[in-house]
Amino acid sequence: MSEIQNVAIVGGTHGNEFTGIVLLKNWQKKQELISRPSLNCETLFANPKAYEANTRYLDSDLNRQFSLTSLADNTLTNYEQSRAKVINSQLGPKGNSRIDFIIDLHNTTSNMGPCLMLCKADDFNKKLGAYIKKSMPEANIIFDNIPGGSDQNYLSSISPQGVTIEVGPQPQSVIRQDIFESMSMMTHFLLDYLEMTNTKKLPKLPVSYEAFQYVETLELPMDNKGARIGMIHKDLQDNDFKLLKKGDAIFTLFSGEEIFYQGDYDAFPHFVNEAAYYDNNLAMSLSKKFSISI
Amino acid sequence: MSEIQNVAIVGGTHGNEFTGIVLLKNWQKKQELISRPSLNCETLFANPKAYEANTRYLDSDLNRQFSLTSLADNTLTNYEQSRAKVINSQLGPKGNSRIDFIIDLHNTTSNMGPCLMLCKADDFNKKLGAYIKKSMPEANIIFDNIPGGSDQNYLSSISPQGVTIEVGPQPQSVIRQDIFESMSMMTHFLLDYLEMTNTKKLPKLPVSYEAFQYVETLELPMDNKGARIGMIHKDLQDNDFKLLKKGDAIFTLFSGEEIFYQGDYDAFPHFVNEAAYYDNNLAMSLSKKFSISI
Repeated sequence: MSEIQNVAIVGGTHGNEFTGIVLLKNWQKKQELISRPSLNCETLFANPKAYEANTRYLDSDLNRQFSLTSLADNTLTNYEQSRAKVINSQLGPKGNSRIDFIIDLHNTTSNMGPCLMLCKADDFNKKLGAYIKKSMPEANIIFDNIPGGSDQNYLSSISPQGVTIEVGPQPQSVIRQDIFESMSMMTHFLLDYLEMTNTKKLPKLPVSYEAFQYVETLELPMDNKGARIGMIHKDLQDNDFKLLKKGDAIFTLFSGEEIFYQGDYDAFPHFVNEAAYYDNNLAMSLSKKFSISI
Repeated sequence: MSEIQNVAIVGGTHGNEFTGIVLLKNWQKKQELISRPSLNCETLFANPKAYEANTRYLDSDLNRQFSLTSLADNTLTNYEQSRAKVINSQLGPKGNSRIDFIIDLHNTTSNMGPCLMLCKADDFNKKLGAYIKKSMPEANIIFDNIPGGSDQNYLSSISPQGVTIEVGPQPQSVIRQDIFESMSMMTHFLLDYLEMTNTKKLPKLPVSYEAFQYVETLELPMDNKGARIGMIHKDLQDNDFKLLKKGDAIFTLFSGEEIFYQGDYDAFPHFVNEAAYYDNNLAMSLSKKFSISI
């Protein structure tokens, strides 16, 4: 991995995830907070119109518009599809990017704590995860690469390396101080790591650590007309990253009936009851836990 | 108080407070769940367009449109102002109402637990509060009458008696099973109480109980241009209905500075960091705790 020089910190990719937006405004006033000697660090407010409207997005989810296919498709013209093309020209273009590393700041309503989401399980990201885990033992490191999906559609995929920070639980359209501090801290550790990589002053990293590999997404219970007929079971609510075994309760139907997990592997749910998932009737993501060796 | 016969249960007054909407749909399918021998119980979905748009309201807050002045003002023509007039003709008209008792179902993002909000501290409501407190000791009973405000603007003020149920914490646009069960339970206790009042089979009520009297609403810290410059202090976050004394931390500015409560009375905050309050830069409500004697 060659030196990382140009870094972009992005907030407000989703307009009702407030922490990143407030942090950006803070850092824009006090640029010294995010400056490191070997880095050029800039900020970008990705979806100001959605923030004004106090909603996740106006037309479509901005953080799903950055595949090479979508970026090249000039028939995709709605607000977020247009923003994606503009952001790609500002930070990218993807494949030949001006920016070396993107940090995209997100909140979740799920009880996920501070999470580092990584799209590639390459050597660089494995070490980055090790440093974050060492610095913030409460952090969860998630390898979010969709199996077989080489053309990622996240904003952070514009640059050759990039991460998404997800911190929760926080309701949409709210700022919690604990979440604010946690997101700020993880961003600072990331910048520190890049600086230490550039100056070849990396600290001793753990030889291995636990991380999560995304596997699949489960839907909320629906009837045959597609109407929602149930909710996350209260025994699962707030239990992100806790073991879910075959036979454990996952849903309660509004009629009272309980639904049990039938998967054939030990799953670790996350994004449990995430508000934004309701748009697509999604209930949670499942991952497998594994050990990463450095 | 004469007999209460006609009851309306209202959900979806705010389109992104999902619990009441789901409960309504359930009860519309199984009317027997909310039927009591002496009551005619009907349901109303107050703001379906806001629910479709997954937002609190389209044009203005529906639950502030029910003062006699607003209802009579034909220059108020936006969606919620129009809905208010229609709902008033369906359930009211206010002052000469077909419905005797309204139960309006709401969620909050604040850590308020199950709350019964009452606008009048009359004998009927004091006893109603006593029964709810006896049946659900975890419930908070709030007398929400604004001092000097005789022309209430809440939906539940259409009928001569009425309550608002508030249950949290729940992010906007989410359904939590614990909140679902708690709201369902309080509604059932209210219907039971009305039935027992009608049939003169009231149980023994506690001679006194603790309740809260709304006093004032505090604003979020703003600069002189009206821009938000701070957030709820982490020591206050989630501490709804806990004592707040002069000198306790209430806000943290984004710059790091702490702001302390300067009030001259022992306050009990609620709606702490409620998402919907941000529209008006409000931070929390303050109440005084007092003992109600029956």
